[in-house]
Amino acid sequence: MSKILTEKIKKANDIKDIDPSEYKQLAQEIRCFLMDKISKTGGHLASNLGAVELTMALHLFLDFPEDKLVWDVGHQSYTHKILTGRQEGFDSLRKYKGLSGFPKRKESDCDACDTGHSSTSISIALGMAVARDIEQKNNKVAAVIGDGALSGGMAYEALNNAARLKSNLMIVLNDNNMSISENVGGMALYLGKIRTNRKYQELKDDVYYALAKTPAGERIADKIKRSKDSIKRLMIPGMLFEDMGLTYIGPIDGHNIAHMMKAFKTASKVDGACIVHVITKKGKGYIKAEENPSRFHGVDPFYVKSGENKLQERAETYTDVYADTMLELAKKRENIVAITAAMPSGTGLARFQKAYPERCFDVGIAEEHAVSFATGLALQGCKPFVAIYSSFLQRAYDQILHDTCINKAPVVFAIDRAGLVGKDGETHQGVFDLSFLSAIPNMTVIAPKNKKEFKEMLEYCADFGGPIAIRYPRGNVYDGLNEYQDTLKYGKSEWIYKEQEIVLVAVGNMVKTAVQVRGRLKLQGYQVSLVNARFVKPIDTEMMDSITVNHKIIVCMEDNVKRGGYGEHVASYLKESGKNAIKMLNISVPDKFVEHGDVDELYKEIGMDADSIVERILESL
Amino acid sequence: MSKILTEKIKKANDIKDIDPSEYKQLAQEIRCFLMDKISKTGGHLASNLGAVELTMALHLFLDFPEDKLVWDVGHQSYTHKILTGRQEGFDSLRKYKGLSGFPKRKESDCDACDTGHSSTSISIALGMAVARDIEQKNNKVAAVIGDGALSGGMAYEALNNAARLKSNLMIVLNDNNMSISENVGGMALYLGKIRTNRKYQELKDDVYYALAKTPAGERIADKIKRSKDSIKRLMIPGMLFEDMGLTYIGPIDGHNIAHMMKAFKTASKVDGACIVHVITKKGKGYIKAEENPSRFHGVDPFYVKSGENKLQERAETYTDVYADTMLELAKKRENIVAITAAMPSGTGLARFQKAYPERCFDVGIAEEHAVSFATGLALQGCKPFVAIYSSFLQRAYDQILHDTCINKAPVVFAIDRAGLVGKDGETHQGVFDLSFLSAIPNMTVIAPKNKKEFKEMLEYCADFGGPIAIRYPRGNVYDGLNEYQDTLKYGKSEWIYKEQEIVLVAVGNMVKTAVQVRGRLKLQGYQVSLVNARFVKPIDTEMMDSITVNHKIIVCMEDNVKRGGYGEHVASYLKESGKNAIKMLNISVPDKFVEHGDVDELYKEIGMDADSIVERILESL
Repeated sequence: MSKILTEKIKKANDIKDIDPSEYKQLAQEIRCFLMDKISKTGGHLASNLGAVELTMALHLFLDFPEDKLVWDVGHQSYTHKILTGRQEGFDSLRKYKGLSGFPKRKESDCDACDTGHSSTSISIALGMAVARDIEQKNNKVAAVIGDGALSGGMAYEALNNAARLKSNLMIVLNDNNMSISENVGGMALYLGKIRTNRKYQELKDDVYYALAKTPAGERIADKIKRSKDSIKRLMIPGMLFEDMGLTYIGPIDGHNIAHMMKAFKTASKVDGACIVHVITKKGKGYIKAEENPSRFHGVDPFYVKSGENKLQERAETYTDVYADTMLELAKKRENIVAITAAMPSGTGLARFQKAYPERCFDVGIAEEHAVSFATGLALQGCKPFVAIYSSFLQRAYDQILHDTCINKAPVVFAIDRAGLVGKDGETHQGVFDLSFLSAIPNMTVIAPKNKKEFKEMLEYCADFGGPIAIRYPRGNVYDGLNEYQDTLKYGKSEWIYKEQEIVLVAVGNMVKTAVQVRGRLKLQGYQVSLVNARFVKPIDTEMMDSITVNHKIIVCMEDNVKRGGYGEHVASYLKESGKNAIKMLNISVPDKFVEHGDVDELYKEIGMDADSIVERILESL
Repeated sequence: MSKILTEKIKKANDIKDIDPSEYKQLAQEIRCFLMDKISKTGGHLASNLGAVELTMALHLFLDFPEDKLVWDVGHQSYTHKILTGRQEGFDSLRKYKGLSGFPKRKESDCDACDTGHSSTSISIALGMAVARDIEQKNNKVAAVIGDGALSGGMAYEALNNAARLKSNLMIVLNDNNMSISENVGGMALYLGKIRTNRKYQELKDDVYYALAKTPAGERIADKIKRSKDSIKRLMIPGMLFEDMGLTYIGPIDGHNIAHMMKAFKTASKVDGACIVHVITKKGKGYIKAEENPSRFHGVDPFYVKSGENKLQERAETYTDVYADTMLELAKKRENIVAITAAMPSGTGLARFQKAYPERCFDVGIAEEHAVSFATGLALQGCKPFVAIYSSFLQRAYDQILHDTCINKAPVVFAIDRAGLVGKDGETHQGVFDLSFLSAIPNMTVIAPKNKKEFKEMLEYCADFGGPIAIRYPRGNVYDGLNEYQDTLKYGKSEWIYKEQEIVLVAVGNMVKTAVQVRGRLKLQGYQVSLVNARFVKPIDTEMMDSITVNHKIIVCMEDNVKRGGYGEHVASYLKESGKNAIKMLNISVPDKFVEHGDVDELYKEIGMDADSIVERILESL
């Protein structure tokens, strides 16, 4: 298929040896490569197609690995991986032990920092720039941040600090007018104005023209040109950034390598931090992705021609159930509102948004604000459901504690993607929420065993009078065990099978695994009880007391780290209350970051698949 | 002393019945009241003196409790408390069971939200405004945020969202050019420009004058006046906010009630969110506080005349030791840098800042950026020490996990104010850090028993090759047990007394309490061992194994919540490893928010003073 890419790009900096006349072909080849690979493996498509020329320009401008390039979020770094000798890895993209979908220091010394969450790049890059100055080195440092990521507060904190520190740093604002979904908020409006500032440009010209008509006017025009601050507004877009003390260059066509190179060179001569505002088209070069970039943000394997998923039939997910149930609840209760942080489709709120636009709030990539905003809504009588992925909710830890829980505000936290999420790897695994939430006073934490219970729990949440978190996994619903369904009671677990000898106490989605574990143990002749924990906080101590009577071993199972999780709390209760007759085994995520791969493979790797758990139980007996 | 205040202000809204000619006297009386009370009890002085007229104007404008007023941070709400019938409470200000130093819903229905941390007010108020719209009510909602708090990223997230939602909301920007210390960063520079924009005003006038000279110019001037966006920059300050889609009014003299009232009225007619920029003087009316607002931000009881502390001799604090040790370390190692989030004096970095200005970074109230910035510094070869109070570090939970720990960056977290802090109450208690930090892979968590060990641990941190957190309490150092000092070894606890029967295992500052507990138990004839945990993560399992041999009961002691803390992890280890012969008692902070008061009283209330612990141990035996 290709020639330049396969023949001339073997390692970092090889792109510098290519003739500028070949750039266009190389860009074309990279797009073909991306389409070919991602359509087979799945992965992030639209953002990578949009950043091809930008990445090429950066690689022409920077020297690797001496210069440091920090990708915000990082899912747009595929071309960077291609240009640094990792083409072969793309066949195993996001697979177990394969190439990561995000920058990864252990893959290449050209990856300056592992990333995955949004809005961190300017902070990291500013740190690297300052360290360079302290060490009196002279390497370049650049951050690439999308306009979506710019809605995250810490990006603003970093800009604010960069303005003060005067350390040389290039901040490339890759503006495609999108987060995963359409971008929202005041900053988005502002960037939109810059993009379409023709009228403004005309008015500016008018002013100069008029001033030029008199000698006094000419002097003033001159004065304006020499003015360093406020009046400079007349000259250039991006004054919001200039107001903050940053230099702004742009907007630049992000598909024109020559223009970007020129801008980067200008930026490198600027003292202090310089924003280079680059306009790109998400999905560029693949018409289906250009037309529907949100659909092609992260994709499963698909047919290039039709754009359709290769997996035709999609099973029902917990997100789907959340979507359905929220619509039902909102119909019944007018004070229910839904909040998402730039994930209306990911969290299943797209239909809610259509049905109840006045009660649905996409606040942008701004988890902190999302939680405190919800707290305000709750304190004034609304019933907010905040749907945020487990790993992203980490960013709002203080707001959950300080705003929601101290005020006992009845906010519902709908925590999608809890447990291992798979292909996105360590930055996205939702394995800390049970720990960080359970430590907070006034918080209640629950998890459903199956689809039916999920719906019932959401209804329970709608009626609940304080802060409550409900966590559920990525992927298909478990629809078994429907015949077992005690009424939900505050703080109470549920007996599913009541036998003796071994008792499995499983949290949420681990109940499904526990059923498999139980089946295998039964085959070996063991008596096995099964308890669905339901409440992670508070734990059901009455249940614990009754469990200890007829069982030799209690096996707690949770898809969360051990430290601070459900099992540790149970162990602590058993130890402190002197329940010595019963042994305990804690099945939980070990104390390490779990990399990317298929979820089942990953659970196997960490000894949490049914077979491994059976083995561990038999060892413990 | 006073007349209007004591005779006419009994409850909320009483201020509305006062004649405008009396405002000046009332402000004077409030300042006298504040000086009188705070000089006796201690508390937040300078910020309250600065906000007297602003609060009066807000109370003239708003109707309580229907209208909602959200104070950012909240330590500037004393006048609000005075004007809502809480004058009598000031004798017990910040005392156990007394008046809180922050807004508190249970004190008054005029307090819309409990607060204590920075930068949350716009989010909360925006939520309240939107809920009002959904419920078709027509109450007003206002937030008061300082320019310091505006450096926190979530304030920007909220502005960004407010610009989009078009819900009526008044955001009063109380600009005194200060955080606790001097304000920093790009936004501060920008606000500074607005404050001192006389030159800009002149240039603006020049442009108009010149344009007016020709008919074409006149038409353009007219066009400019009618222009809704970019060109409006020429007319008004605050365009940065207007650029984001917010209406801006100001700057207004924050000590002129009539001007503020007029601005508030204008703001209330604006559709959507409106920023009223008010300039105040921190410490206004007390010359010593005006001259040194940082010193008089939060004060102990003091002599009004001299400004001196009533407590003449101040004992050495852990913060002092941190200050000394950082200077020593920085002298020895050139790559050591220090970072603070707007707390250079609170965290003891003031001297470091003077000695090594190029290696000391005050990033503003921006804990998230502080941590990721430090990560960038560490990844490029520096050794950053990030000093942040325990409760404020909660805000950077995701950055610690996602940036520092996934990248294994050798950042040192110096966590001051760990454990109960006392007078600032529930928002400031540092009782969650052991839980939220210990759950993160690649993190090491340590705590010193006394001053000597603190210094040694800081040296250990300087040499440590990964992320490490060292936590220490507010207040005076413990200087006992100096004869006991094993060499620090990774993951190892320290025997202090090796006996049998009872073993106390204490974390950090709890070792001091454990010594008292041991003394009392010895008097009653018990054999008592004492172990200094040192490492909270990882725990010393070898030590645990040896402990279980000769003791009947292990008593873990930590000034952190139980869930996810040290004791639970020990219990879990003992339970899972089948150490049944030894009983366990876990002394930790209970699962509730601990209010304000004297630290000793608070520990007593939660059963963690020496007497209570002895009692609990005797019960358990």
